Amino acid sequence: MANHKVTLLPANQTVEVPTGSLVAEAIQRAGLDIAQPCGGQGRCGRCAVFVKGDGARRRSTLRLSAEDIESGFALACQTVIEGDLTVSIPDQERIERRLVTDKTAKSIEVPFPYDQNLQGVRAFRVYLPEPSFQDNKDDLTRLEIALAGAGYPEAEVPLALVRRLGSVVRESDWSPWVVLEAETWNRPHGPARLIDIATDPIEPVALAIDIGTTTVSAYLVDLITGEVLGSSAEYNGQIHCGEDVISRIIYAGRDGGLAELSHRVRETIAELLVRLEKRTGVSPDHIYKATVAGNTTMAHLFLGLPPTSIRLAPFIPTVNMPVPIMAHDIDLGINPLASVDCLPGVASYVGSDITAGVLACGLSETGQLTLFIDVGTNGEIVLGTHDWQVTCACSAGPAFEGAGVVNGMRATEGAIEEVWVNSGTFEPTWRVIGGGKPRGLCGSGLISLLAELFVTGVIDRGGNVKLDLDTPRVRQGDHGPEYVIAWAGETSTGGDITLTKVDVDNLLRAKAAIFAGFSVLATSVGVRLEDVQQVLVGGSFGKYINVEKAIQIGLLPDLPWDRFKFLGNTAILGTYRALLSRDERDRLRHIARGMTYLELSADNSFYDAFTAALFLPHTEIARFPSVASIWEREAGLTPAGGAA
Amino acid sequence: MANHKVTLLPANQTVEVPTGSLVAEAIQRAGLDIAQPCGGQGRCGRCAVFVKGDGARRRSTLRLSAEDIESGFALACQTVIEGDLTVSIPDQERIERRLVTDKTAKSIEVPFPYDQNLQGVRAFRVYLPEPSFQDNKDDLTRLEIALAGAGYPEAEVPLALVRRLGSVVRESDWSPWVVLEAETWNRPHGPARLIDIATDPIEPVALAIDIGTTTVSAYLVDLITGEVLGSSAEYNGQIHCGEDVISRIIYAGRDGGLAELSHRVRETIAELLVRLEKRTGVSPDHIYKATVAGNTTMAHLFLGLPPTSIRLAPFIPTVNMPVPIMAHDIDLGINPLASVDCLPGVASYVGSDITAGVLACGLSETGQLTLFIDVGTNGEIVLGTHDWQVTCACSAGPAFEGAGVVNGMRATEGAIEEVWVNSGTFEPTWRVIGGGKPRGLCGSGLISLLAELFVTGVIDRGGNVKLDLDTPRVRQGDHGPEYVIAWAGETSTGGDITLTKVDVDNLLRAKAAIFAGFSVLATSVGVRLEDVQQVLVGGSFGKYINVEKAIQIGLLPDLPWDRFKFLGNTAILGTYRALLSRDERDRLRHIARGMTYLELSADNSFYDAFTAALFLPHTEIARFPSVASIWEREAGLTPAGGAA
Repeated sequence: MANHKVTLLPANQTVEVPTGSLVAEAIQRAGLDIAQPCGGQGRCGRCAVFVKGDGARRRSTLRLSAEDIESGFALACQTVIEGDLTVSIPDQERIERRLVTDKTAKSIEVPFPYDQNLQGVRAFRVYLPEPSFQDNKDDLTRLEIALAGAGYPEAEVPLALVRRLGSVVRESDWSPWVVLEAETWNRPHGPARLIDIATDPIEPVALAIDIGTTTVSAYLVDLITGEVLGSSAEYNGQIHCGEDVISRIIYAGRDGGLAELSHRVRETIAELLVRLEKRTGVSPDHIYKATVAGNTTMAHLFLGLPPTSIRLAPFIPTVNMPVPIMAHDIDLGINPLASVDCLPGVASYVGSDITAGVLACGLSETGQLTLFIDVGTNGEIVLGTHDWQVTCACSAGPAFEGAGVVNGMRATEGAIEEVWVNSGTFEPTWRVIGGGKPRGLCGSGLISLLAELFVTGVIDRGGNVKLDLDTPRVRQGDHGPEYVIAWAGETSTGGDITLTKVDVDNLLRAKAAIFAGFSVLATSVGVRLEDVQQVLVGGSFGKYINVEKAIQIGLLPDLPWDRFKFLGNTAILGTYRALLSRDERDRLRHIARGMTYLELSADNSFYDAFTAALFLPHTEIARFPSVASIWEREAGLTPAGGAA
Repeated sequence: MANHKVTLLPANQTVEVPTGSLVAEAIQRAGLDIAQPCGGQGRCGRCAVFVKGDGARRRSTLRLSAEDIESGFALACQTVIEGDLTVSIPDQERIERRLVTDKTAKSIEVPFPYDQNLQGVRAFRVYLPEPSFQDNKDDLTRLEIALAGAGYPEAEVPLALVRRLGSVVRESDWSPWVVLEAETWNRPHGPARLIDIATDPIEPVALAIDIGTTTVSAYLVDLITGEVLGSSAEYNGQIHCGEDVISRIIYAGRDGGLAELSHRVRETIAELLVRLEKRTGVSPDHIYKATVAGNTTMAHLFLGLPPTSIRLAPFIPTVNMPVPIMAHDIDLGINPLASVDCLPGVASYVGSDITAGVLACGLSETGQLTLFIDVGTNGEIVLGTHDWQVTCACSAGPAFEGAGVVNGMRATEGAIEEVWVNSGTFEPTWRVIGGGKPRGLCGSGLISLLAELFVTGVIDRGGNVKLDLDTPRVRQGDHGPEYVIAWAGETSTGGDITLTKVDVDNLLRAKAAIFAGFSVLATSVGVRLEDVQQVLVGGSFGKYINVEKAIQIGLLPDLPWDRFKFLGNTAILGTYRALLSRDERDRLRHIARGMTYLELSADNSFYDAFTAALFLPHTEIARFPSVASIWEREAGLTPAGGAA
């Protein structure tokens, strides 16, 4: 048997290995480290390396795109050495992703050419004639004449600014700087309005806010350049009052509950403002505009509107298209006269986070049949093209956010975020956020674990744990049958981390609700899910979903992976767009007005679709051909669980 | 000598008196009482009686009009009995006037036919369709559609009402009552705006307020009928911070001074609201509109605007035409969403109390050359017709309000308000507000006393006290020469009440400033004061001025008495008109815009006119022919004091 020389970079070591060896073996022989979380089964894609030379035969290229292969990538565990080779091992850091809540400005680009002259908020200097006995017009009239000269003949001057007017015009030698809202984009036909007046030049900034049930995110935007000066995110301080919107609504009904919830989210935003000021040096007083997205409940709580009717049939919110307000109306800690533009939503369970997401993901501009899903604490779905959009919300519950699951947790330090299970030993490998000992499982970890347990045959298609397997990992626990992913000695809590049958059922219900949503939407407009040309996944949680595993459990439809795009927090990206441009803002209003909302709880076909989706991956496994083939190959099992 | 029978009514007593007796003597002979404050000199008019029969010869009819005489009135002290007579003695109560700050509603009439459909604020009920799964529009959209159906397609709904919307529409079975401001009269082109929404019917009311430097007055107005439901007045709580506008402006410049002054006037208004609610049962929450007048400094303090520049040349206020605001902007204790319409003024020293006064007095609607004077803490004057108006302010100072005078006081209980001095004995008779012992002299008392002292020769035309008169009433006091009007034993203070030479000088300066204002205004437009066809006197103080005495001291021009009309508080009457009708409101804006303001301190002719007016009644006594004749007759003196 011939030996081949394998050069390993960047260490620049050379090893000789016999023909037929795997690249992974050559690396190990050199004493170098390579991650193989799935145990060398070619499923996780974590051992991808860069090969140069003709001596490499790829047995499997699962997880590699055509472009990846073209440019030389190969899976170390699935690539057979048949000649001399040079193998570059990428920096593991570079293929690890990190939980980044606070990004620096440079990573967010202005999404289109920005023109400050089309911005509603403008800053400029005005020159007033000095008064005399011959010209004794009052200060305000002088200012109004100057504003008229600048093109704003009927600008409103709020009392708060009139109060400062006398001293500012005199201290500035009758040449003050003004900030003016030429157009309030959510108030058609409204007059221009003065927002500030000062002796010194002002560089106006604005704030884009996405109020998620779990996380509040903010961009600080330079209104001269349109650039994001800084961004920040923080858990919504309302979490203490309930994890999901329903529990928040119930909390709001308690004595003082609404006021507390309103206060808590304002405090969260205040904290973001403190951070942004620290990082950028921009005072919140110079924030002259805020554009806000959030689901309908979050929008109600932010505005201090009782959300009660949202959870009572027929689920009517007080407002989908909030009224124009100023920051002082809600004690938002930016310039008190700044307009606060709460973006329009569609219905009680499809809010402005979704309309902003549709704007950001481009669904309303494309001819392709597109499925947009925002995986957050709720699961909202939009199906459509530039011509039409239909939407619904799936009460998925917060299982994918770690709630309702014994060892579930949010995606913070200590959360297992990805899992591989060895199909022979049923031993798991996992990656923990932050790299330390695990405390629990976050949403992506749960999806990953559920998929692995299913594919390796630890649970059957009905979600039942197979207690007869030859491993201590499966057992009858206090909460019924369960799988132990981490033993007490390996965890930071000192207890075992498990996934119980009850947890599995919760996860099945959550994924079934979302998939049933897809089905009902598609049926309602007479298209098939298979015809969907692109699936756009928004939501900061969506960013971390492993598409393969999400398909394996039947959360996402079984489409070619390259049809999926993970866009991150589309809500704030859309909010940022709507802040920058009146055209985008108008487009968003158009989206909100034009979208057809399907109330699933009033739709008889939903329950059938939901029930059918309670299996792994689905009652009709034929709808998931790629999963069927893997499952049969990996586990060597035939379909079980009473499905067709 | 023949006797005549005199029957006295209502006592129905008969006495016989010889020919040539006075009616006053007949009354005294019958043991009845009649007031003769001037000591029977025929000057005070207080002994007016009603005579029937031919036996009465009127020696003097001073203070009686032609109509009075025609209908039988005569002065008891000046009417000689030459035949049988019936004499009716009027109830003294009925000819006494009282200081009435709080009037009942019935005394104020709706000044023109009122049409509630032309009112800006309207209340009505709306009917919304109940939502269902098939019709899941949000609450606000339902309301907006209903308002559009009522003729208000783009009505603004403030956030505060959106906050109550959900519960009110449900509790009212989707048929709430709304209060809407269809037009905000001081905000042209502004949209309709919702002010209230409720489950029960609402009867909207409004408030007219006049903020005087000394007194704040308010009318509570029914917006359905236009009627005044109640009125109330109270001293401005800012008095503790200074008596006149200049001292208030200085106080406002102190640390926290402006905030305190703003707060104090709001407290005064709050007190009026408490009284009005007690009297009418109308909650301040149902006050949906306020219209406010006040001099420019009062308007600034009310709005929290620093008034500093008002007293610095060239005397420029921050605003003459205040911006539209809502009650919550200034913490006014009425419905927080009510519009507060601060009426437009003209300049730093001619405020909206004067423009409202011009509206109320009819100057801007008459072809007659009219002089309007508002005698308050300041003296503002307007000269004009419907075609033109010219105005100025005389820094008269607060002497006529009792300040700057040793024993001066405001027109409250214990103030001497009218005085007669016996030209033989120099003994005074006075009337005290409330009827008890005197504490001091109010404005009308001071004018009265000054006139009496002048006419009876106690002081000369230069205001010098003649210390050589044979009476203990004149003496050299601690503050220089003085006249004692009340001895310590007669007063409630236990000290003498006097008028000193210094006081006289202050009063002369005050009246000279006002008269100089008249002169300069007339000269500026090329008319003579003698050509003035009517003199309209506003201001609650003006209401009590004795025109004869005011002419005698040269405060008012020497015109026939029937050209003078005393209109009371014209500021609040005009405010009431501007509240009732958009036409009146527009007229007021037109008045404010069209009036020509003369800044006296920048007018060289003012100082000459002022100096000329520092004498009693004036350097050129020929300008006061009626005074010259009385003065010569009563005092038997020739002009003194170096005047021509």
